[in-house]
Amino acid sequence: MTTFIHGGTVVSPTGSQQLDVLVDGDRIVALLEPGSTAVGSDLAATSDVLIDATGKYVIPGGVDGHTHMEMPFGGTSASDTFETGTRAAAWGGTTTIVDFAVQNPGGRIQDSLASWHEKASGQCAIDDGFHQIIGGVDSDSLKGMAELVAEGVTSFKLFMAYPGVFYSDDGQILRAMQTAADTGALMMMHAENGIAIDVLVEQAIARGDTAPYFHGTSRAWQLEEEATHRAIMLAQLTGAPLYVVHVSAKQALEQIATARGAGQNVFAETCPQYLYLSLEEQLGAPSFEGAKWVCSTPLRSREEGHQDELWRYIRTGDVTTVATDHCPFCFQGQKEMGIGDFSKIPNGIGSVEHRMDLMFQGVVDGRIGLERWVDVCCTTPARMFGMYPRKGIVAPGADADIVIYDPKGHTTIGVNDTHHMNMDYSAYEGVRIDGHVDTVLSRGTVIVDGGEYLGRAGHGRFVKRDLSQNLI
Amino acid sequence: MTTFIHGGTVVSPTGSQQLDVLVDGDRIVALLEPGSTAVGSDLAATSDVLIDATGKYVIPGGVDGHTHMEMPFGGTSASDTFETGTRAAAWGGTTTIVDFAVQNPGGRIQDSLASWHEKASGQCAIDDGFHQIIGGVDSDSLKGMAELVAEGVTSFKLFMAYPGVFYSDDGQILRAMQTAADTGALMMMHAENGIAIDVLVEQAIARGDTAPYFHGTSRAWQLEEEATHRAIMLAQLTGAPLYVVHVSAKQALEQIATARGAGQNVFAETCPQYLYLSLEEQLGAPSFEGAKWVCSTPLRSREEGHQDELWRYIRTGDVTTVATDHCPFCFQGQKEMGIGDFSKIPNGIGSVEHRMDLMFQGVVDGRIGLERWVDVCCTTPARMFGMYPRKGIVAPGADADIVIYDPKGHTTIGVNDTHHMNMDYSAYEGVRIDGHVDTVLSRGTVIVDGGEYLGRAGHGRFVKRDLSQNLI
Amino acid sequence: MTTFIHGGTVVSPTGSQQLDVLVDGDRIVALLEPGSTAVGSDLAATSDVLIDATGKYVIPGGVDGHTHMEMPFGGTSASDTFETGTRAAAWGGTTTIVDFAVQNPGGRIQDSLASWHEKASGQCAIDDGFHQIIGGVDSDSLKGMAELVAEGVTSFKLFMAYPGVFYSDDGQILRAMQTAADTGALMMMHAENGIAIDVLVEQAIARGDTAPYFHGTSRAWQLEEEATHRAIMLAQLTGAPLYVVHVSAKQALEQIATARGAGQNVFAETCPQYLYLSLEEQLGAPSFEGAKWVCSTPLRSREEGHQDELWRYIRTGDVTTVATDHCPFCFQGQKEMGIGDFSKIPNGIGSVEHRMDLMFQGVVDGRIGLERWVDVCCTTPARMFGMYPRKGIVAPGADADIVIYDPKGHTTIGVNDTHHMNMDYSAYEGVRIDGHVDTVLSRGTVIVDGGEYLGRAGHGRFVKRDLSQNLI
Amino acid sequence: MTTFIHGGTVVSPTGSQQLDVLVDGDRIVALLEPGSTAVGSDLAATSDVLIDATGKYVIPGGVDGHTHMEMPFGGTSASDTFETGTRAAAWGGTTTIVDFAVQNPGGRIQDSLASWHEKASGQCAIDDGFHQIIGGVDSDSLKGMAELVAEGVTSFKLFMAYPGVFYSDDGQILRAMQTAADTGALMMMHAENGIAIDVLVEQAIARGDTAPYFHGTSRAWQLEEEATHRAIMLAQLTGAPLYVVHVSAKQALEQIATARGAGQNVFAETCPQYLYLSLEEQLGAPSFEGAKWVCSTPLRSREEGHQDELWRYIRTGDVTTVATDHCPFCFQGQKEMGIGDFSKIPNGIGSVEHRMDLMFQGVVDGRIGLERWVDVCCTTPARMFGMYPRKGIVAPGADADIVIYDPKGHTTIGVNDTHHMNMDYSAYEGVRIDGHVDTVLSRGTVIVDGGEYLGRAGHGRFVKRDLSQNLI
Repeated sequence: MTTFIHGGTVVSPTGSQQLDVLVDGDRIVALLEPGSTAVGSDLAATSDVLIDATGKYVIPGGVDGHTHMEMPFGGTSASDTFETGTRAAAWGGTTTIVDFAVQNPGGRIQDSLASWHEKASGQCAIDDGFHQIIGGVDSDSLKGMAELVAEGVTSFKLFMAYPGVFYSDDGQILRAMQTAADTGALMMMHAENGIAIDVLVEQAIARGDTAPYFHGTSRAWQLEEEATHRAIMLAQLTGAPLYVVHVSAKQALEQIATARGAGQNVFAETCPQYLYLSLEEQLGAPSFEGAKWVCSTPLRSREEGHQDELWRYIRTGDVTTVATDHCPFCFQGQKEMGIGDFSKIPNGIGSVEHRMDLMFQGVVDGRIGLERWVDVCCTTPARMFGMYPRKGIVAPGADADIVIYDPKGHTTIGVNDTHHMNMDYSAYEGVRIDGHVDTVLSRGTVIVDGGEYLGRAGHGRFVKRDLSQNLI
Repeated sequence: MTTFIHGGTVVSPTGSQQLDVLVDGDRIVALLEPGSTAVGSDLAATSDVLIDATGKYVIPGGVDGHTHMEMPFGGTSASDTFETGTRAAAWGGTTTIVDFAVQNPGGRIQDSLASWHEKASGQCAIDDGFHQIIGGVDSDSLKGMAELVAEGVTSFKLFMAYPGVFYSDDGQILRAMQTAADTGALMMMHAENGIAIDVLVEQAIARGDTAPYFHGTSRAWQLEEEATHRAIMLAQLTGAPLYVVHVSAKQALEQIATARGAGQNVFAETCPQYLYLSLEEQLGAPSFEGAKWVCSTPLRSREEGHQDELWRYIRTGDVTTVATDHCPFCFQGQKEMGIGDFSKIPNGIGSVEHRMDLMFQGVVDGRIGLERWVDVCCTTPARMFGMYPRKGIVAPGADADIVIYDPKGHTTIGVNDTHHMNMDYSAYEGVRIDGHVDTVLSRGTVIVDGGEYLGRAGHGRFVKRDLSQNLI
Repeated sequence: MTTFIHGGTVVSPTGSQQLDVLVDGDRIVALLEPGSTAVGSDLAATSDVLIDATGKYVIPGGVDGHTHMEMPFGGTSASDTFETGTRAAAWGGTTTIVDFAVQNPGGRIQDSLASWHEKASGQCAIDDGFHQIIGGVDSDSLKGMAELVAEGVTSFKLFMAYPGVFYSDDGQILRAMQTAADTGALMMMHAENGIAIDVLVEQAIARGDTAPYFHGTSRAWQLEEEATHRAIMLAQLTGAPLYVVHVSAKQALEQIATARGAGQNVFAETCPQYLYLSLEEQLGAPSFEGAKWVCSTPLRSREEGHQDELWRYIRTGDVTTVATDHCPFCFQGQKEMGIGDFSKIPNGIGSVEHRMDLMFQGVVDGRIGLERWVDVCCTTPARMFGMYPRKGIVAPGADADIVIYDPKGHTTIGVNDTHHMNMDYSAYEGVRIDGHVDTVLSRGTVIVDGGEYLGRAGHGRFVKRDLSQNLI
Repeated sequence: MTTFIHGGTVVSPTGSQQLDVLVDGDRIVALLEPGSTAVGSDLAATSDVLIDATGKYVIPGGVDGHTHMEMPFGGTSASDTFETGTRAAAWGGTTTIVDFAVQNPGGRIQDSLASWHEKASGQCAIDDGFHQIIGGVDSDSLKGMAELVAEGVTSFKLFMAYPGVFYSDDGQILRAMQTAADTGALMMMHAENGIAIDVLVEQAIARGDTAPYFHGTSRAWQLEEEATHRAIMLAQLTGAPLYVVHVSAKQALEQIATARGAGQNVFAETCPQYLYLSLEEQLGAPSFEGAKWVCSTPLRSREEGHQDELWRYIRTGDVTTVATDHCPFCFQGQKEMGIGDFSKIPNGIGSVEHRMDLMFQGVVDGRIGLERWVDVCCTTPARMFGMYPRKGIVAPGADADIVIYDPKGHTTIGVNDTHHMNMDYSAYEGVRIDGHVDTVLSRGTVIVDGGEYLGRAGHGRFVKRDLSQNLI
């Protein structure tokens, strides 16, 4: 079956062009100059499906490199399943996610990966890959890393936070980074000094500062900056490429920018919440409402100017990718577990559905250019995680993961009707976006169109990934 | 007439793919997945010309953003005419140059541009654009800037060096930058403190240090760093985008990197000579031979490590483009004018023919990645100077400026037989490159193939350029 | 004649101690532990004069390294003569000034120094030295530098501002710095890009922005930062020690701090006006009142935070000295020359009388420590300008320039009665200081005491200075 | 009893002056201008003891802020007792040491201090204070900190190295720093990432790299830089003043310099071994000889240029003090414990006797100025550790701890005859110094003179210290 997308403007990280796109089966097979007769066929006439993209952007499907579907955390689980979460992603123009398999200390990482494959199997609306969390670095898990690389899981995440849960000490980090350097795998890091944070949390609770706001103040920027620097130095020592997830403090980004300037393979991910939301406005919302925005790293102070600085770092290229860290919990029954003790609030914000829209708003607002939008949301994540050119680009040979985006459309974010994530609230309730995801193709199949979801659970396939293609 | 290039690997700044390319007339009209039948035609059968690129790279034609054909300098003129120079460029896989029209104080810049158009008209083997040098900033030339922008000359070069010749003082620079900010034009800068340099030159000659080596020491890195910083600050004050030409000192690049990190629109160009050659080895060659490498900014000390640092800055992206500053002079009769007084040696090195090769050697040597080669030599220069996607990318809609590059071929650089520039010596005599330009198409026409030049003077056309598409 | 100062706390840059001080004639001859009988004499009984300093600080007389008495500027002259200005200095606890002799282009610097000696001769209440301004760098004035060093004028000031008046171009600066490096003399620099400033001034006037406020905006921080960096680089190239006068922009200080961190002999002076006053509040005062605070470098924006940053740099040691740049003009008849055109307002603020008080307020406010107060106001200026240990320290062998400062006293600054400068307004009208200069000795003679001036014109002597003793 | 020291040049951090010094009992009671008769007594005639210091420097007795006498380490103890160690210190012109009392996890810090008082009691030739090591941060030891401050132990040392021995985790460091900020105490830090180092050590031993050289490579500079940055950030968060002991990596110093530039109370100590000795030459000595120089932090690579950079940081003031970290072990029987396993070599170098000489050589070699020598070896350590003006300055009221130093003398360092430390080797065997400690007074008593030791065990007294007087 062939699909012919005509009249639109194809956007890539280097520029925009009016081009027609021919899809055959699940792949793009040709890009064509509109009106050219040289190919000798009238594709508008011969193609099975015609999509008129006139006046719209034709962009690669979004690649969200950081999601946590059904993630067990603090005695509950993230509220989106692979089914609901990937469907929501599809609605929002994201056609690939990379989720996290979780190994706990003592368990085999191969087993944990298998169990996550099982969770996802037959559920996904879009393609998905896995990173592997190593909760317990030991000789077994280090050996397992090489094995997983061969199976297309080429990135491994450690935590400098959450002692007693996912926490790795610096010796474990060092060993895992040595293995990463040896295998070429990417080391992902949750960079917050969890040992120090736990003291501040304990002290806050002890003195009665139990509201969600104090989640933010207990996770001080100094402790993100510190851990980020520590991870950079351990990576410098071992030669491992380092990807720091969900950076929210401008000082942490400054550390990363410095290392990058020196030519080190260090990469920063940030998320829309750190660009739009703040400690004062959201975490500091009256009563217990701030719990909606409890995530780690935390939202940062607008007064200190983190949000503006993060936008700048996206512009200068020192933020490499924008992902969501999608880890939704319902307010009722889940977030509420932390009434009277912020440390018991499950950590996470859900936004897998709105990343492409929220970042496009940055284009509309003059924060970033159109090309940079596609770059940080689609192309570079695909390259970063070894999926290019299969993902992340509108080009022949690539999977036909394509989004028709209407810059004249509008999208209102909210819980009622409009959002499709399994959450009883929205982190962006009422926010209006100057743009709209009109049509979404996943491997050649139209899964969203005309305000309707046309996909199905099980359409999505596991993406076996190569090593990172984005090293300096 | 259609041309079908099949079997090759198309390289872009974001990656490489096996793709077929269909050219119709002077443009690329389609990119196709090899073997796909979806377009419904057998292009290999129906196309007029077939080019088998199996095992080779298919890259955009090189864009050399900095050449000086027939440039009057120091009582003589650069030895390549637009005819010989653009033919040599073609041989080396460069299909677009941007040369410099020169206004002298008192003259109208419109007139100077007209006279340069006349020089180039009917002579060029490849397409060419112009930057405009403003030797005399005054109210007339400032008014002329807006006029030239409308005619596709969207970048203007000033000199902080060469007092009494091209030199602008800081007030003139400030005014020109204000106009650049207003019109969106790009301000290009030769950033060396010429006032201070002239004192050092005079002192060197006075104490008998007349050999070419002292050209290098008189143009101390401090005076390049200083002028670079000064230009950055004036640009910061006025809001003008700034492009610093031929950066050779690592300290100057550090200033540029700092400004870029802060989000300022500052860009660095370097040239192959600064990456490969040095003060000690070349400028310091015995007898008068060092004159071959007298250019400004000068070659820098290898002991101080400039060359390695420059490669690093290419890798990290703080060097934006690699151009040649092609400004050839013959040794006999031209360079020899400075025997006994280095300040009389015409300034310039010719390498328009070898930029693509020399930079590919950086890929072979592991200095930069394959994608970065295409990026700094083709795509980003095209974007920087407002020619994208017409130039700088292999994509439908683009001009069919295409190079078939053989990574298994070899090229030996030298004056006898092999080089085609109008120079009686080579700056890289005997250097062997692990790669080879096999075939060159300019707007769909094969102009070099199988070791033969098939082009003609007058094939090249003036490129009317847009404003820069590469701003941060 | 002997004087015995007992009961006070002697403050030095390294600490404070309760010590008695014995003065004999014009010098300090002993420091003694209070109550010790080991010297074998009852100095309280045998001394001619007793000064009870109980509860007070005994500090070295202030050294103001930057004053302009009777300075010709813009068609008028600074309103304080050497007589009135040094008397006012004495009132405020300053016992040494270093003023500036001015050479104009074409004149011999030896002659200009002689003429300044003549102006000061027999007029000064306190000791005074001279820096030499070189308005016209040429071979004569360069030769003169060595001669002046031998006569105790060991520092030379150039201007990067004021084209056509004091301005030196970069070639002249380079030559003068070479001579400074050869002779060991200190190069002082007014670091503002005057060529660019003149363009901004002309444009401001042309568009009708003629109020004093636009004096500030025309002298943008970028143009101070730029010139500061340029001076640093020229000093780096030549090896000259560099002292940047009246730094007011935090960005200029950042450049200086960076150079100092690299071990370069670069020093920053700031003035009380840049620590307390601002663009918005003073220069932006309604009507023409802002003219009172027109000086160059200008007062900086409080919103941009320059004042706080300058205090920090004093604390960290990157500001080396605090001087006044005392250059007073009366409002009536002098400042008024610029009504309708800020560029005609004579540049200068008078505060030679209040530096010690204003900086002590910084101690009271917790901005700096007590020791740092003495350091930046007395000891380091004396070392910087080659007068230590004759000046700047309370120690045997030193000139008995001593101030008894009462931390419990109070001083109100203002034009009526209280100030002694020849100005019809005060830059700090109504400001109240938590401290008071009680008694001032100059070379053993009490010149201020009990609210009375006891000195006389002609008491002060020329201080023949050594080379700087403060190099890194 | 009075002593009159005449004819010498008294050196302080701000300069040098010819001054006479009168000592009465254990204190300096007067500084006098030579030849002045104003005090009314002929002190040369009336004093009990005359010391002719003509042609020599009269400096404050050295203050060594970092020694470990009788320190238990790795199953043995440092070979100098308080008796032998302080006697050796006296020989070398050091008149005050601050040693470390050691609390082990579970013990009360008050008890540990008592036990160290007992070790030192009646043994010391010179005055001594104590820092307190906290090996086990818990609520008891935190409470103990305030108690010790009241008893004159105002600085507390933690270790980021040595897991299982002295190691504190980041939560413990955070808590201790909070207490330091509350009490005003100084937090001292051994800043090396011990957790990561232990992995590298284990891996080195496992692969057979057992020689002393691998002690150096296992303690990579990245792990010192990292820990230093971490300590700085925790101090920034808590407000604690931070003193980083024995810094040897230039990158760690760069971190400290950056924090200091920002106005944070961070201080660096280095030691002569890091200025003179290197990884390649000493740790890499043939056979097992390198064991002589096994200490932590380790000697650094000369090729990487640490030594020169450290001298620069002393010059610029970012190194605050030079101490010895005197922790001697004999080669036979002690260092030899690590034959076949470098990790079993007791860590430490002894040089308490030679610090003043080794640093004076830096003056002779033009590395630092004379004043800076006294500053980093005497005055600032005294201020840093709350002993000024009792220690660290030649001034009335100060303890008469005075060294007569002959710049024309010579000292040869070595084990035979010449050194007095209880070590069977010297870290500087055969090194010749261009200077000599002629005479040493401790609290007015001559304890070394004319090549004879005239002191006695038990002369030294415990110095009850105030809070640091050296904060920014």
